[in-house]
Amino acid sequence: MNKFIIGIDVGATNTKIGLIKAWSYKVIYRTVFGTRNYIRRKNILIKTLTSKIESLLQENHLFKNQILAIGLGLPGPIDCHKGIVHFLPNIPGWKEVPIKRILEQRLKIPVFVDNDVNLITLAEWRLGAGSGIRNLLCITLGTGVGGGLILDNKLYRGAHFLAGEIGHMPINETGPLCNCGGFACLERYVGNKYILSAAGKIFKKNNLTLEKLSLLSEKGNNQAIKIWQDVGRRIGVALSGAVNLLNLERIIIGGGVSLAGKPLWLAIRKTVQQRAMPNQARQVKIVRSKLGLDAGILGAAVLTRERF
Amino acid sequence: MNKFIIGIDVGATNTKIGLIKAWSYKVIYRTVFGTRNYIRRKNILIKTLTSKIESLLQENHLFKNQILAIGLGLPGPIDCHKGIVHFLPNIPGWKEVPIKRILEQRLKIPVFVDNDVNLITLAEWRLGAGSGIRNLLCITLGTGVGGGLILDNKLYRGAHFLAGEIGHMPINETGPLCNCGGFACLERYVGNKYILSAAGKIFKKNNLTLEKLSLLSEKGNNQAIKIWQDVGRRIGVALSGAVNLLNLERIIIGGGVSLAGKPLWLAIRKTVQQRAMPNQARQVKIVRSKLGLDAGILGAAVLTRERF
Repeated sequence: MNKFIIGIDVGATNTKIGLIKAWSYKVIYRTVFGTRNYIRRKNILIKTLTSKIESLLQENHLFKNQILAIGLGLPGPIDCHKGIVHFLPNIPGWKEVPIKRILEQRLKIPVFVDNDVNLITLAEWRLGAGSGIRNLLCITLGTGVGGGLILDNKLYRGAHFLAGEIGHMPINETGPLCNCGGFACLERYVGNKYILSAAGKIFKKNNLTLEKLSLLSEKGNNQAIKIWQDVGRRIGVALSGAVNLLNLERIIIGGGVSLAGKPLWLAIRKTVQQRAMPNQARQVKIVRSKLGLDAGILGAAVLTRERF
Repeated sequence: MNKFIIGIDVGATNTKIGLIKAWSYKVIYRTVFGTRNYIRRKNILIKTLTSKIESLLQENHLFKNQILAIGLGLPGPIDCHKGIVHFLPNIPGWKEVPIKRILEQRLKIPVFVDNDVNLITLAEWRLGAGSGIRNLLCITLGTGVGGGLILDNKLYRGAHFLAGEIGHMPINETGPLCNCGGFACLERYVGNKYILSAAGKIFKKNNLTLEKLSLLSEKGNNQAIKIWQDVGRRIGVALSGAVNLLNLERIIIGGGVSLAGKPLWLAIRKTVQQRAMPNQARQVKIVRSKLGLDAGILGAAVLTRERF
């Protein structure tokens, strides 16, 4: 009998649910719903998840015993062993929620939980741009700048499931205050809204988007090119630190900003070549993520298969 | 029958050899010789090592079968599995030297080899300031700034045995050129000679030492205090990055500079509290190394016992 995994990727904006073949990782059904309505309505979000799963089973004519397990990613620090969400910075109302136990009791299907960026990292490592690599960093560029680490062929979670925060590596001794309470963090320079605000000042426009900024740079606009070069250089400074500290073989970059094109990528790679130590720099390959929007649900499936 | 380990710590300045009880890690005999005479005289250094070991055995009335193994630390990147020294940045003349095989053939005793800072890290983790800790960074402050990582209860060596280079994490987007070819690396600000050169400019003296600078700061000299605060803040910036990336439980700081006293330590801890993310900062303890000058030979013994 064919077995399936249900992969769920809860984001601050959208929640994606996928039905995935357990042995081929083929996604055979997808559904999405907006998460914003559920801020401070944790119990209703959980109820929505269970009812979406029930209807997914019905629509696909599946019995529960055909589901190997549910893999669930959430955007915050999570005790993946106990299946407890410590908190979700961008979805208020969650605090020490034993989501694994709650869902297992209601659905009678095994549930595995982890941080969303960890799941993207697992997916890229097993199925994407990091296949076969022992030591890698996967970074996601968006509103926030997240990261996940595979070290010695294993997802590295840190002392309290908080590892991977490449977005909060300082890149200067002094600099602007960051959301996290620190200052001069990478994210404070290259998070989406900071790129747009810097660009807004240069172009004196309020309706800029990252897509428009990429188009401008593709068309040869020097100011737009310069903005992407600055973003790339700053990402490169933080990556150089990670490369020297961890002697990584691969860095995988995904998220909206990573689509910005040549000037960004050239600046990232050039900075790492210049600033990481020569042997380390020679040994690291910097590539674009491969799995796109499915990375989260695929990672949930990888987690499930590794833990089952 | 009592078994012993011979621990050897080859430094750019001095080479230490210790005879260590295998089960208690008690150092029962020590000897030291200068390494500087052996620059570009690799074969003579190896010969000296073997003859020192032979005489250590004689002096202590030991047969070779009483030696469990020899643990050897060298200051550079080393393939610890094959026992090959790739190169030693401060002892010219070593390139791809199969030191394990050479010593085992000559001495007929098993030999285990690793990088010197990795051995200090192993020692502090098993016997010193990191006892019982799962995730830690050990940093050594000296001419260079080195580091070793225990991650998930294991020494982390990286893709090509080069991990741990906290001294070459950039702490600014722009800054002074470093030995390594990069710029604005932590070491370029807080390596011994850079501290002394900055202090020399302020005090207009050439004969300053780190000890004098520490004494001045202890006596309340504001300029000396300011120098140590700057050093501490800069170390703290790099450590904040490591703490956010790796969610470390402990940071162990050793080496000459770590003896500088309160202003240095206050600045390091304050910077990490300010700049690491609140949860990460709360969970990390920053402490002084415990094992002092024996750390290297003890680490060689720990390596030997873990590998044997």
